[in-house]
Amino acid sequence: MQKYVDIDSKLDKFNDECGVFGIFRNDEDLDSVEITYDALYGLQHRGQESAGITVNCGGSFSTVKETGIVSEVFNEKNLSTLGNGRIAVGHVRYTSSKSLDRASNQPLVIRYREGSIAIASNGSITNFCELRKELESGGSIFQSNSDAELMAYIIAFERCFTDSLENAVIKAMNRLKGAYSTVICGPSRLIGFRDRHGFRPLCIGKIKNSYVISSESCVIDSLGGEFIRDILPGEMVVIDDEGLHSYTDNIGSGKTSFCLFEYVYIARPDSVINGVSVHSARIKAGELLFKEYPIDADMVCGVPDSGFVMAEGYAKASGIPFGMGFVKNKYIGRTIAKGKDKMHRLLQTRLTALKSNVEGKRVVVIDDSIVRGETSKHIVRLLREAGAVEVHMLISSPPFIYPCYFGVDISDKSSLIANRMTTEEICREIGADSLGYLSIDSVHKIAENANVGLCDGCYSGLYGAKIPDKIFFDKYARKIKNKT
Amino acid sequence: MQKYVDIDSKLDKFNDECGVFGIFRNDEDLDSVEITYDALYGLQHRGQESAGITVNCGGSFSTVKETGIVSEVFNEKNLSTLGNGRIAVGHVRYTSSKSLDRASNQPLVIRYREGSIAIASNGSITNFCELRKELESGGSIFQSNSDAELMAYIIAFERCFTDSLENAVIKAMNRLKGAYSTVICGPSRLIGFRDRHGFRPLCIGKIKNSYVISSESCVIDSLGGEFIRDILPGEMVVIDDEGLHSYTDNIGSGKTSFCLFEYVYIARPDSVINGVSVHSARIKAGELLFKEYPIDADMVCGVPDSGFVMAEGYAKASGIPFGMGFVKNKYIGRTIAKGKDKMHRLLQTRLTALKSNVEGKRVVVIDDSIVRGETSKHIVRLLREAGAVEVHMLISSPPFIYPCYFGVDISDKSSLIANRMTTEEICREIGADSLGYLSIDSVHKIAENANVGLCDGCYSGLYGAKIPDKIFFDKYARKIKNKT
Amino acid sequence: MQKYVDIDSKLDKFNDECGVFGIFRNDEDLDSVEITYDALYGLQHRGQESAGITVNCGGSFSTVKETGIVSEVFNEKNLSTLGNGRIAVGHVRYTSSKSLDRASNQPLVIRYREGSIAIASNGSITNFCELRKELESGGSIFQSNSDAELMAYIIAFERCFTDSLENAVIKAMNRLKGAYSTVICGPSRLIGFRDRHGFRPLCIGKIKNSYVISSESCVIDSLGGEFIRDILPGEMVVIDDEGLHSYTDNIGSGKTSFCLFEYVYIARPDSVINGVSVHSARIKAGELLFKEYPIDADMVCGVPDSGFVMAEGYAKASGIPFGMGFVKNKYIGRTIAKGKDKMHRLLQTRLTALKSNVEGKRVVVIDDSIVRGETSKHIVRLLREAGAVEVHMLISSPPFIYPCYFGVDISDKSSLIANRMTTEEICREIGADSLGYLSIDSVHKIAENANVGLCDGCYSGLYGAKIPDKIFFDKYARKIKNKT
Amino acid sequence: MQKYVDIDSKLDKFNDECGVFGIFRNDEDLDSVEITYDALYGLQHRGQESAGITVNCGGSFSTVKETGIVSEVFNEKNLSTLGNGRIAVGHVRYTSSKSLDRASNQPLVIRYREGSIAIASNGSITNFCELRKELESGGSIFQSNSDAELMAYIIAFERCFTDSLENAVIKAMNRLKGAYSTVICGPSRLIGFRDRHGFRPLCIGKIKNSYVISSESCVIDSLGGEFIRDILPGEMVVIDDEGLHSYTDNIGSGKTSFCLFEYVYIARPDSVINGVSVHSARIKAGELLFKEYPIDADMVCGVPDSGFVMAEGYAKASGIPFGMGFVKNKYIGRTIAKGKDKMHRLLQTRLTALKSNVEGKRVVVIDDSIVRGETSKHIVRLLREAGAVEVHMLISSPPFIYPCYFGVDISDKSSLIANRMTTEEICREIGADSLGYLSIDSVHKIAENANVGLCDGCYSGLYGAKIPDKIFFDKYARKIKNKT
Repeated sequence: MQKYVDIDSKLDKFNDECGVFGIFRNDEDLDSVEITYDALYGLQHRGQESAGITVNCGGSFSTVKETGIVSEVFNEKNLSTLGNGRIAVGHVRYTSSKSLDRASNQPLVIRYREGSIAIASNGSITNFCELRKELESGGSIFQSNSDAELMAYIIAFERCFTDSLENAVIKAMNRLKGAYSTVICGPSRLIGFRDRHGFRPLCIGKIKNSYVISSESCVIDSLGGEFIRDILPGEMVVIDDEGLHSYTDNIGSGKTSFCLFEYVYIARPDSVINGVSVHSARIKAGELLFKEYPIDADMVCGVPDSGFVMAEGYAKASGIPFGMGFVKNKYIGRTIAKGKDKMHRLLQTRLTALKSNVEGKRVVVIDDSIVRGETSKHIVRLLREAGAVEVHMLISSPPFIYPCYFGVDISDKSSLIANRMTTEEICREIGADSLGYLSIDSVHKIAENANVGLCDGCYSGLYGAKIPDKIFFDKYARKIKNKT
Repeated sequence: MQKYVDIDSKLDKFNDECGVFGIFRNDEDLDSVEITYDALYGLQHRGQESAGITVNCGGSFSTVKETGIVSEVFNEKNLSTLGNGRIAVGHVRYTSSKSLDRASNQPLVIRYREGSIAIASNGSITNFCELRKELESGGSIFQSNSDAELMAYIIAFERCFTDSLENAVIKAMNRLKGAYSTVICGPSRLIGFRDRHGFRPLCIGKIKNSYVISSESCVIDSLGGEFIRDILPGEMVVIDDEGLHSYTDNIGSGKTSFCLFEYVYIARPDSVINGVSVHSARIKAGELLFKEYPIDADMVCGVPDSGFVMAEGYAKASGIPFGMGFVKNKYIGRTIAKGKDKMHRLLQTRLTALKSNVEGKRVVVIDDSIVRGETSKHIVRLLREAGAVEVHMLISSPPFIYPCYFGVDISDKSSLIANRMTTEEICREIGADSLGYLSIDSVHKIAENANVGLCDGCYSGLYGAKIPDKIFFDKYARKIKNKT
Repeated sequence: MQKYVDIDSKLDKFNDECGVFGIFRNDEDLDSVEITYDALYGLQHRGQESAGITVNCGGSFSTVKETGIVSEVFNEKNLSTLGNGRIAVGHVRYTSSKSLDRASNQPLVIRYREGSIAIASNGSITNFCELRKELESGGSIFQSNSDAELMAYIIAFERCFTDSLENAVIKAMNRLKGAYSTVICGPSRLIGFRDRHGFRPLCIGKIKNSYVISSESCVIDSLGGEFIRDILPGEMVVIDDEGLHSYTDNIGSGKTSFCLFEYVYIARPDSVINGVSVHSARIKAGELLFKEYPIDADMVCGVPDSGFVMAEGYAKASGIPFGMGFVKNKYIGRTIAKGKDKMHRLLQTRLTALKSNVEGKRVVVIDDSIVRGETSKHIVRLLREAGAVEVHMLISSPPFIYPCYFGVDISDKSSLIANRMTTEEICREIGADSLGYLSIDSVHKIAENANVGLCDGCYSGLYGAKIPDKIFFDKYARKIKNKT
Repeated sequence: MQKYVDIDSKLDKFNDECGVFGIFRNDEDLDSVEITYDALYGLQHRGQESAGITVNCGGSFSTVKETGIVSEVFNEKNLSTLGNGRIAVGHVRYTSSKSLDRASNQPLVIRYREGSIAIASNGSITNFCELRKELESGGSIFQSNSDAELMAYIIAFERCFTDSLENAVIKAMNRLKGAYSTVICGPSRLIGFRDRHGFRPLCIGKIKNSYVISSESCVIDSLGGEFIRDILPGEMVVIDDEGLHSYTDNIGSGKTSFCLFEYVYIARPDSVINGVSVHSARIKAGELLFKEYPIDADMVCGVPDSGFVMAEGYAKASGIPFGMGFVKNKYIGRTIAKGKDKMHRLLQTRLTALKSNVEGKRVVVIDDSIVRGETSKHIVRLLREAGAVEVHMLISSPPFIYPCYFGVDISDKSSLIANRMTTEEICREIGADSLGYLSIDSVHKIAENANVGLCDGCYSGLYGAKIPDKIFFDKYARKIKNKT
């Protein structure tokens, strides 16, 4: 669906939390489609809304992309139409909106004067409206509202005034503000680049003699490849027949600001980002929680599945035994209950507390965040019903208060419980004996060895880069609505 | 899939034989989506590859489009997302290529400096390559290879240099060569226009106080509406709040050339086009066949379902009784036979001759065309096995020899039997006692009362308009392939 | 779903109007599954609710059966699990009830003391309740309410007390009352038999050296086989390694009563049943309609598709030209209209009148039957709106008044318009200038050369065999309900 | 598909590892279908092959059952056809064979002289062939090869010679040998019973005033109900309008033999069976592993997801820190790799080791069993590649050597690695530094407080009950094959 008039709501750009991957194949015996498929499966946690692969087979671009998860979108039949090209890029997309907007699925292939390029991006362009207005003024024609389309158009535009795709990308990076970790499949090269703040991850690896670029390092490992390094904030990496080239024209002197929420929740624990293992960061979050909240308890457990690691850290730091507090039904479930019972019923059938492990104990339970508070309330109740004598809930991040403009989709601000209640009130609401959030200082420490700066904007309101100008947004949107 | 490098093969533009529809709703109690849905169902014979509807609801454009037939693509759930806008356009698409190219499904919505437009078109642009090259040189960026995208871009481009969408369309019509019967949904108007040769049909009707534009008049009837008139070759019709406006700037003095194959095969018999009933034209084809081939026979029958009407005409003219010669299995069938038997088995199970009607008779059997000859051969054999003592096959059109550049998809030229054999040879090949094609003179007479000229290019090689420059095509395609 | 308590409503036996087929393969180069598949496709008109094939491969029985039409149920993958056995039977099923009762899909395979049999049947057992009660009293256990299950149980029961499957079937035929044309796949033989009244068709054919048994002869033709003869009412035919054997123990001296509605509507026109071509019977119906209603008109047309043949006959007899009066949309359609418009809208978009053929003419239009009258009303209106000056509707059968107990599913009696109105009233209701039904005398003449007696029970109320005892039904059903 | 001739292979009875549930509703405000649906979702781990629900609504039995998991099989539409009856039973089924045998899906509803019953069972009847032969000799007719069908027939048979369903079930229990935990929905009562050895679990609970019977207690908890007690081995429980009645006629003096593998692997950790918490049993398994294998290591981890709990136990007993060793991709995955790489690739993309947690450490890793050894080999390799300096694999059960005849499906005996190699050889094969299985003595201790005896037949070859007579099997099967 085309929903352009809703542009005043930033979340309608459909671009948040994605996974990207690219390969430049130098080995005869590798299958670029198979590798990209496996890589997207490994990046599935970054987006379940749609998936796509574009292959450049001798200059001809073929794409399979569709709404759905990797195992639904691809099959042997449609993948066999792609051919084992030397360059392939892939994308998994997340969107909160239950949109059917197929035009925004990626990779996006465009064709212009200088040939074709395919683009797959993760992030959010903050000067989207300004740039789009500028391009439209110059006569550009758009077919969706996606960041990727805008980025491709900017690059194509710059390419017409410079002598190489590389230079065009460098120029485009100067114009594009906000967050982007992007791969591009050109006529004869694979390009990867990251905004100068480095909000989202992107790294390089090698499988045999072939190069890959991936949102996260975990898939390079599981593909049997070798992790080389992160692409630096502001860096562009180009891979062609002659090997890997690095362009650092856009590496400014300004501070970098990698998203802390990647360490807290988004990234897979087996990834290493900016020199810091995500798993270690979460272990540390557990340790720091103990430092801030040294609770006297009999067992520490995590909310499945993300809380396990923080609980492991808290257990190590405190000496309190780690225990499984819950059983989660691993099958895909729905509920046929109607009305207000629906949510409750679904929670109830998906998660149960392990009475035999919990009964009579003082329990510390760790989760990564609280959104609306419903799940936390349910978890406390489960533990109490299972016989826990005390329930202390700890959260491995500070309260989520501010919107993210750099690629994380946060549901309606007003539904965030931390915007309506104090920590004490939330504690009462969810029925816990105590509730503790990790402090902003501590959350920085979980990745203190990172070789980049960190963005805590959603916790502090102090963002790592300029946020979009709301007034401009509104004016532009009004103009669009009035025009006929 | 993006298959741009195949552009040297004209058939890859995916644009042939389509149906278009548009409505500008002035009645509160009409539902523009429901009407467009029913209209597309009525135009289904013009394209079964994909279907789509775009609705302009207060300036916001929403689209549902997908690969499949009307009853597969639309359902109450996805249609309910469209809203009962005042303007809606719809499209059914046919392509020979078994392409999964979703990017070419229509309507196509674009957004540019002056707002949004949705386009749905039937036909084929003959200067596609020149125009596209020109636009690309100017910096335009394309996302598919469809005529509709090119047309939308040309219109948008012109709109930036003129004061109204109407003027932009008029200018675009001057640049676009070839065949196009097109509807456009603008921010506040519905526009329909037809190329100056008038290759494809397009007409206007009224349902209550609301205007509709349709590829064929039959759907206006079945919607309970009133047929007003054809849009003239070169005419643009604009419908807005103030009613219907006609612009005739592009009506040249040159001769018009409506596609004869629309009368012979494509259009539905209950449509009236250019003042001539399609059904009457086919009755006349039967009568003219008798005039050219006054065979002494006991029964005249048609090949289901299209041959019935011509047989009715031959029967009337000759006095020979009309009879059903065949039974056609009306259920969707496949065959599980393998190898070379496959086609034979499928024909055999789909069609059987009516022994009791055919036995001992001299039979005239009428079909609309012969493509590869396989079906005709089967039909003659069926009649002989059923006891026909003579089988005379008549074809209600001249031999199909030349490719069509104006919107009819003809399979590979070399597979056309009339390109390899004389009529006598074909007669022997299919095993008939005699074989007669309608002469080119006669095929013109089936629509002799039409208020337009007629194109017989696929029979005569003398096209109603300039055909694309092959040499240019090849050069352009080579350039694309070499560029990296 | 198991719905046994609804047994008081006869229509819940789910057995009406089916198609059956069997093959005993003697040729190495034939594929019994492929032939059965093609045969079921050719018999699809007799049932679209479910389809199934059972193959006996060296004594091992394998079945694929599912709800859906032939092309939906079978695919290369599931058919490949069947193996090219020497004996195969197939079934297509029709039911009015929108039942999900998979347990009633056929063929049904049972396993008992003496081995396995698969059964596929067309018809309706009138002493179903008596026999089932008797078997249950003896300890039998049922898993559905189908006639086929009951028949299989009776045969298995008899088999335990006699020395061969043949003798068991002969004994079972003596116990089973009503209508049944049935094929059985035994451990080493294919058996076909028909109730002594011969209500439903069943015939034998030969493909090369292999024998087939089929509901209708048309599929034997389209399979390239040779029609041998009908199985006689009361006859059982057994095919085994030694060839074809006929058993005529159950051929009584009583009168036979083949269903006239098979000639009027059910059977395919290219079948020959009881020595009479179905197509000829319908031609004759048209001729007899002219004899009874010699209307002075300008054109005679048929309601698509079944009315064409009768119109052909009327045209021949009267000298009035045959013409196509309508165009029927051949694509699968649904309507998204809501409420009372729904049916009207569906009719309107599926069928349109051919104005150019109808305008200004006095039209005779022929259909096979009137059920609720809605369609006829629509047809008359379409013709009038298209400019017909007179509309005379003729029906090629007498008014449908009485329920059928022998295998034809007739919707709720009270919804039959002929039960509520006289012919004059119906004529007024549908808006025709005149309305004529074929008389009961005449409908007998359409198949007067048949070598069997004919049943006109649904027209006359005088059935060809004893109908079920309603009082018994009610008592039995009540007993079932009270029992706990 | 009917595959009766394969009966000599026990695994073709399609009956292994299932979940059953039943409800007798006494509360107006409960929805018996909704509760059964949620219960089956909670029992999904016991079977993913098919799911079904039968509801007795005023004496009328309706069933929805189909191949697939709970969320695929049921939807609001088909569940709405069932009605909120007072009695409902449900079933989830597991089979190793990729069979399409719909006839074996449960619940199975049969109808006989005394009314209808629906049956849902978990287990395996060891005298299946003898009983079936006996019934067939007496004239019984079967439509599948399922235990459930046989059990229903035996009960129905007994019911004809006794005065109540209760007595019939008691008599049937005397005839049925082997393992069965079964629920039956009768005309007016819900019955649950368990074979006298008590191989499989079955328990009673209460939701408000309504009674439920379930394979496992965990679903009673998650439904907000109250666990009452296990049904005893040999006990039959009947629930009707007057409440709950217990019949203990079949409780013999012989020893009971509950399946140890239920504690080790099958049951959900949040269930309590025979008075022993499954979770506690697994914690104890971890503790006992430490007692048998007191390894000096730096970290103990579990193979996801089942190994976590045993690792927790080992960590507690040893003081070695518990750690997450792996990340498991939680999305449904397939692989498009071909040939021998397929399995390897799938494992690789599904599971990765957590380098940051494992590097440089001596690791103990715990799993529940080793089947073919492929997965264990992969796990050891993953840990080594992640930098583990020592890898010690512990298995929380003894080697799996003997087939199970009582309801657990074990793949082909020859593929079990423990049948081909000693523990030392397996250790070398999988590349571990050491490998330890829990001893048979210890595995008994994990449930030493259970109020029943325990079966370790698959480990020791000493079964808890008589196993089927293979010679009889073979003779019977041969007879079936020869009979025609």
